Amino acid sequence: MREIGSHEFALAAGAVPERSHGAEPEFTSHDLLCVLNAADQTANLELTVYHTDRDPVGPYPIRVEARRVRHVRMNDLIEPEAVPLGVPYGCVLRSDVAVVAQMLRQDTRDSGRGAPGITCLPFV
Amino acid sequence: MREIGSHEFALAAGAVPERSHGAEPEFTSHDLLCVLNAADQTANLELTVYHTDRDPVGPYPIRVEARRVRHVRMNDLIEPEAVPLGVPYGCVLRSDVAVVAQMLRQDTRDSGRGAPGITCLPFV
Amino acid sequence: MREIGSHEFALAAGAVPERSHGAEPEFTSHDLLCVLNAADQTANLELTVYHTDRDPVGPYPIRVEARRVRHVRMNDLIEPEAVPLGVPYGCVLRSDVAVVAQMLRQDTRDSGRGAPGITCLPFV
Amino acid sequence: MREIGSHEFALAAGAVPERSHGAEPEFTSHDLLCVLNAADQTANLELTVYHTDRDPVGPYPIRVEARRVRHVRMNDLIEPEAVPLGVPYGCVLRSDVAVVAQMLRQDTRDSGRGAPGITCLPFV
Repeated sequence: MREIGSHEFALAAGAVPERSHGAEPEFTSHDLLCVLNAADQTANLELTVYHTDRDPVGPYPIRVEARRVRHVRMNDLIEPEAVPLGVPYGCVLRSDVAVVAQMLRQDTRDSGRGAPGITCLPFV
Repeated sequence: MREIGSHEFALAAGAVPERSHGAEPEFTSHDLLCVLNAADQTANLELTVYHTDRDPVGPYPIRVEARRVRHVRMNDLIEPEAVPLGVPYGCVLRSDVAVVAQMLRQDTRDSGRGAPGITCLPFV
Repeated sequence: MREIGSHEFALAAGAVPERSHGAEPEFTSHDLLCVLNAADQTANLELTVYHTDRDPVGPYPIRVEARRVRHVRMNDLIEPEAVPLGVPYGCVLRSDVAVVAQMLRQDTRDSGRGAPGITCLPFV
Repeated sequence: MREIGSHEFALAAGAVPERSHGAEPEFTSHDLLCVLNAADQTANLELTVYHTDRDPVGPYPIRVEARRVRHVRMNDLIEPEAVPLGVPYGCVLRSDVAVVAQMLRQDTRDSGRGAPGITCLPFV
């Protein structure tokens, strides 16, 4: 069977909004890592997080079962250390099995003055 | 004539928002599958939907006539089963004719606390 | 000099929102076609617009001078006929010179119930 | 080691919103250039900005250290001249080292009538 997706992804525009409005966890601000593993075997991913002023941190291991989709909030990645909020980050994602990865940001920092919303940060 | 588009698309960031504000159907939350068939023959597409905790479901057949565009709400795909709302999904779309496909999300879960909006979830 | 961009673009997710809130023309809902011509010669583009239920319309001619950027609202394309509002469309853009093209939607249909916002509809 | 990213990027949909609502600098409208340099050497980038009615301006030099991410507001690029607000621009970004680049717009022109939000303007 033909592979669907890629083995490596990278992103420059990361930054988990630090504040939120609305009921948790639905409206909590977050960057959401979305992975589709359409293959017939488990995918073992490793995420490396890049910062502005110190060495990259990782790998964060992420496992996606065969023929499943998985959405992980960056806020929930705490080992080897929590991804800091409110500051820029980049990341590189590598997978032993070809997968499809996308990042989706939900920003509820403010509700009455603009800048809320959802946007997709495409990996390259 | 040269083909426009691709025969296969995949997406990891699916999740139809479960609630809505505003007049139906215009402001109902949805994921909107958009397909352009610029070819001179009918395109027969098959969509497979991936879930977090069970086997993929499909195929959902979608037909797009020659030299036409078609927008289909994921909420309206009910055969072989309705796409569940409020939970992550991924999908793979295959077409016998090269087409252009894009997914557009409208999120009107909440209007006064942020997180409304429209975003494009690019296929890969 | 190396070319920047492509000679052909296609988009499936077109739909100019029919209503608007806020001062015109700044807050008028629109789909905005953005073209960068980084080459040293004028680019002559032809846009073809695809519909859901009738044959494609065009070409709409668009001219972008050498080493210039140009943003054109789809609402302003009226020859050979106005692009209809509030309905799906797709389009194919062809250029004699390699250019960079992007579509940006501003949606101000409603301000108090969600679904406003700006999104980029990437060409493929 | 394999390169991550590209040496050249281009964008057509630039336009820094001219007005803002909310506390500065967090809610100030901006276009945000995001660069990830996952390589082991410093990346020296040159940005050229294209306008609608005059010759391109640049290069704007941007330096990104090895294994770091950097986010730069277009509003902060003032040498050789400030990027004008409220008007269309395009840009071409070149780097001596392969990097990942993305542009993110925050638009807080208005909060009560729609059109706020964040969107990613993908480079091509």
